[in-house]
Amino acid sequence: MKVKVAVNGYGTIGKRVADAVNLQKDMEVVGVTKTKPDFEAKLAVKKGYKLYVAIPERIELFEKAEVKVEGTIDDLLEKVDVVVDCSPNKVGAENKPKYEKAGVKAIFQGGEKSHVAEVSFNALANYDDARGKNFVRVVSCNTTGLARFISVVKSVADVKKVRATMIRRVVDPKEDKKGLVNGIMPDPVRLPSHHAEDVKTVLPDVNIVTTAFKVPTTLMHVHGISIELDGKLEDIVAALEDEPRIMLISEEDGFTSTAKIIEYARELRMRYDIFENVVWRESLAIHEGELFAVQAIHQEAIVVPENVDAIRAMFELADKEESMKLTNESLGIKK
Amino acid sequence: MKVKVAVNGYGTIGKRVADAVNLQKDMEVVGVTKTKPDFEAKLAVKKGYKLYVAIPERIELFEKAEVKVEGTIDDLLEKVDVVVDCSPNKVGAENKPKYEKAGVKAIFQGGEKSHVAEVSFNALANYDDARGKNFVRVVSCNTTGLARFISVVKSVADVKKVRATMIRRVVDPKEDKKGLVNGIMPDPVRLPSHHAEDVKTVLPDVNIVTTAFKVPTTLMHVHGISIELDGKLEDIVAALEDEPRIMLISEEDGFTSTAKIIEYARELRMRYDIFENVVWRESLAIHEGELFAVQAIHQEAIVVPENVDAIRAMFELADKEESMKLTNESLGIKK
Amino acid sequence: MKVKVAVNGYGTIGKRVADAVNLQKDMEVVGVTKTKPDFEAKLAVKKGYKLYVAIPERIELFEKAEVKVEGTIDDLLEKVDVVVDCSPNKVGAENKPKYEKAGVKAIFQGGEKSHVAEVSFNALANYDDARGKNFVRVVSCNTTGLARFISVVKSVADVKKVRATMIRRVVDPKEDKKGLVNGIMPDPVRLPSHHAEDVKTVLPDVNIVTTAFKVPTTLMHVHGISIELDGKLEDIVAALEDEPRIMLISEEDGFTSTAKIIEYARELRMRYDIFENVVWRESLAIHEGELFAVQAIHQEAIVVPENVDAIRAMFELADKEESMKLTNESLGIKK
Amino acid sequence: MKVKVAVNGYGTIGKRVADAVNLQKDMEVVGVTKTKPDFEAKLAVKKGYKLYVAIPERIELFEKAEVKVEGTIDDLLEKVDVVVDCSPNKVGAENKPKYEKAGVKAIFQGGEKSHVAEVSFNALANYDDARGKNFVRVVSCNTTGLARFISVVKSVADVKKVRATMIRRVVDPKEDKKGLVNGIMPDPVRLPSHHAEDVKTVLPDVNIVTTAFKVPTTLMHVHGISIELDGKLEDIVAALEDEPRIMLISEEDGFTSTAKIIEYARELRMRYDIFENVVWRESLAIHEGELFAVQAIHQEAIVVPENVDAIRAMFELADKEESMKLTNESLGIKK
Repeated sequence: MKVKVAVNGYGTIGKRVADAVNLQKDMEVVGVTKTKPDFEAKLAVKKGYKLYVAIPERIELFEKAEVKVEGTIDDLLEKVDVVVDCSPNKVGAENKPKYEKAGVKAIFQGGEKSHVAEVSFNALANYDDARGKNFVRVVSCNTTGLARFISVVKSVADVKKVRATMIRRVVDPKEDKKGLVNGIMPDPVRLPSHHAEDVKTVLPDVNIVTTAFKVPTTLMHVHGISIELDGKLEDIVAALEDEPRIMLISEEDGFTSTAKIIEYARELRMRYDIFENVVWRESLAIHEGELFAVQAIHQEAIVVPENVDAIRAMFELADKEESMKLTNESLGIKK
Repeated sequence: MKVKVAVNGYGTIGKRVADAVNLQKDMEVVGVTKTKPDFEAKLAVKKGYKLYVAIPERIELFEKAEVKVEGTIDDLLEKVDVVVDCSPNKVGAENKPKYEKAGVKAIFQGGEKSHVAEVSFNALANYDDARGKNFVRVVSCNTTGLARFISVVKSVADVKKVRATMIRRVVDPKEDKKGLVNGIMPDPVRLPSHHAEDVKTVLPDVNIVTTAFKVPTTLMHVHGISIELDGKLEDIVAALEDEPRIMLISEEDGFTSTAKIIEYARELRMRYDIFENVVWRESLAIHEGELFAVQAIHQEAIVVPENVDAIRAMFELADKEESMKLTNESLGIKK
Repeated sequence: MKVKVAVNGYGTIGKRVADAVNLQKDMEVVGVTKTKPDFEAKLAVKKGYKLYVAIPERIELFEKAEVKVEGTIDDLLEKVDVVVDCSPNKVGAENKPKYEKAGVKAIFQGGEKSHVAEVSFNALANYDDARGKNFVRVVSCNTTGLARFISVVKSVADVKKVRATMIRRVVDPKEDKKGLVNGIMPDPVRLPSHHAEDVKTVLPDVNIVTTAFKVPTTLMHVHGISIELDGKLEDIVAALEDEPRIMLISEEDGFTSTAKIIEYARELRMRYDIFENVVWRESLAIHEGELFAVQAIHQEAIVVPENVDAIRAMFELADKEESMKLTNESLGIKK
Repeated sequence: MKVKVAVNGYGTIGKRVADAVNLQKDMEVVGVTKTKPDFEAKLAVKKGYKLYVAIPERIELFEKAEVKVEGTIDDLLEKVDVVVDCSPNKVGAENKPKYEKAGVKAIFQGGEKSHVAEVSFNALANYDDARGKNFVRVVSCNTTGLARFISVVKSVADVKKVRATMIRRVVDPKEDKKGLVNGIMPDPVRLPSHHAEDVKTVLPDVNIVTTAFKVPTTLMHVHGISIELDGKLEDIVAALEDEPRIMLISEEDGFTSTAKIIEYARELRMRYDIFENVVWRESLAIHEGELFAVQAIHQEAIVVPENVDAIRAMFELADKEESMKLTNESLGIKK
């Protein structure tokens, strides 16, 4: 029997999670929701998803636009075991009472505060903490990227202190109203940034300090990381090479910027989704006891496999190794 | 028996043409070339293309990078009936003597001057002119976009004068060294622009005048078009709706900019390729005897079906209707 | 005796208008307003302007930030003959009752609908229409740019039909939350655009049709203009050379884009303000009875001289010729 | 008697250095050079600089463009005591033999390798090292920014290790051919970056490690800095407040990004030049023995006062304190 999944919010993250869930043998998408009958709603229907209205009072808008809906989010919740909430930041927390009332488990995204859920989640970092839980929060794209990298390094080295600078794309590619057109924005200005605390929700023992900026690009975030550690570069490189959710690339092959990485991804997967941390091989170095690394994070896609794994953990469908393996194989994440 | 095709220059256009040719039943890609053993070269091999070195003296670079090559462009030319030259602007003309010497037909792209070939080509505009020819030039992305739009309008209205303003993406998405970061560049400053003359290479009887600008975006070109004509809006809309190589979109569905169009395309096709002219339905209006329209052109993809049709015309494999139908079906261009 | 002027909204336009008014011998700035005690408010005080709070209930915010204020907008209105409203779009109309109650004349900016005032204004186009009026609206930067160019051409040629495509900077340089980061936006999608109607508020007899787009740049708007006319290019060029509010530049001198124009302006005036239409000399051509031109418009500065002239017209301080001459001389607008 | 100065290369840096030198009482600009008769050359003449041709064989180009020149660089070198070379990167080194032959002292910019000169220079860091020297290299904008910040911190704290991440504007505002339009580029990919070594050319005893990226903006660089140290935050803040070449700004005043800083600078100085390091007050914090800071660096202007001080040191016109005071006063650098 498959776990029945609702995706509340078929947007940037939601549409990717829906497709990923549908590729799994042990779960299925029962329905997805939209707040507006726009082209994304029409695509959802065209792809065969049953569509529900996220904001019940807007059902007429959909009828007027001749977009077929099956009912509202409330109808959908009656049919599922778990809802993956992919609403905009803060809306997930507002939705929680609805999920509790319907008696369904729920996954929230990293835009919500950590206390919305029983546990914050990253598959590599703390899969087991989510076992059997009812409310789980998959951490944000930036935190996912850091948590994965640190987890791999920790597996072969004694990590003492992590410093990370996050250079963030200001908006996603589809956004055309918000932005920063010409400038660099420290975000936050007050240092160190809160991102370090978010990493500790999944890796509580790591000593980490972070700084973050927004810059006028849409494609990917980039992290400059340095880690004081005891360990050997060759062991770390080997561990990174071994982990499917890390993709090592080389400047020698022409990967000079995130623009080139995306060009490559356009050949590999629909929507140019990159579920892996993309780490520049040449950036890896140990200098005075400190590991250096630069990685690029595709903010639209990186949390997708984590949402799938979170479902498995919550329903105890598989252990960490097996879940990650199933997820990786289904999404084409491989070495 | 299939027409044997070489793609000289497996870059932005070349890789798309190669994939499109391989989807046809009456032609096949025998080999592709690269000048550097970068990630695109490796992808070509991974996808099963036989790789040849475009600049023979660089063969060692490929060996050093452990990228398997079958020989040089000269070796490749011996095995094919036609070469699609997708070299950077002006290099195509330099390559022509090589093609003549090898006795192969050749297709050039719009970056070359029109006299490089016997005829300039756009399937809707002048398919028959390329029948049996040895050297054909597929016109540029902007000219293709204009030629298609005008051809469809001409089929149902009496076109008197066309005016078009082209707002061009400054570089393709993969480019990370050139650009215009913050500004608008008239290109050319001297008016009217040369683009009108290029449209006349495929539609010699059209009275057209053009202006062009470069702006800091990578996704698509946008054309503002006005056409003095005798005709009815409803007939024009119907003709546009009927032509598979025109995609009508609506602002009402959320298509507010090229950013949204690309978001949509990411769901439809690998590399988010849009082979169609994308015309905003709401922009279509007749005002004081003049048709208005705004269309977006995906500069990386729009000439791909035209290259396929050009091969069919040159080898007289099919007439215009049939060729366009075969190309459209294979590439998922449909109404 | 000098006309006493209030500037309501010391932002992008307001601070420029204040400085320009203060350079005139027949008027003076009595006070300026701000809604927030930010760095612009502090600069106003530092420059010697008396500062008032635009939103009375926010006066404590200013006190808390230790920014000295003289009172609220209501206090300021008691001391002046005219208020130049430089509030954000639509707020001007909301402020109007306040001005009526205080019995002061008012100038609104182009972001307001035309019916907010008795007359829409552009010095070259219709100075005399504002003589003695109480409520005048200075048209927007784009309309100002078009109205000036058309007025000059009309003075030496018989203008039949104007077509203009406006390529607009998406946000001003100081904006860091809104934008369009990578894309082109037809704005509006529905054609022709409303801008033509706005031009007719100052040039009612002109047959004009317009199209407009937003692109990811902050520096200047660019207009592609074509005008069907009877006239000689040499007369038109001479008239443009003769009008101080038109600046002719040449690609030959290195002016290849708006980036270069701004680089030049940084050498000429504080804030790199360009009060003139900047017209590319090489773009000027007559082709099949149609004049072509490309001009760049500095959206932050171009309406500044018009606001000064509007004050003179409203108080009948000078006729058109004299007012424009005084304004030009004070602002360094010269041939 | 004034030191006679030539500025070889009246471009982004050169025009600023020329103006700054001319504001000093103990030096004067005898002439400036250009390679092309473009608008910058014409502005130089208009501002009263005597213009010489940097590439002698191009003198006809200037005559043809009717730009008055006094001769070539060779003629100019005969009349001066020192040349400030503001040529593009690497060209300075090529020019050196010419300077040696002419027997003039020379200052090079940070785009040259350090061995081009006897000493690399930053006024705060190592003024005295340049005393009496013939060939001095003023370090780059990024190195200048770091050297100043570290020097101030070192004056009141025991600095153990400096880590800096530089987020660099990809091109200057006037550039319209090069760039990175949408993406983030690690530059260099290989870590740590060479910038640390460059800081050591002026602060040899500092333990520093750096990382650098390019992003699609033109306005300013931004540095994320962390310094392991023994010291008190209040002492460091006081020292930063005390140093004129550091400008402290506050997010509370509305300084949310480099876009706002430039908006402010447009009110203060021609060309919006910011000669100071701009440090966000709220970013300053000590966390686990480590000082955090974010500073913005105006790449076009920050090295200008350093060039002036370098001339004084080379001719022993004043000691460090006095030279910096004279430079600061003349350029409006003050607390």
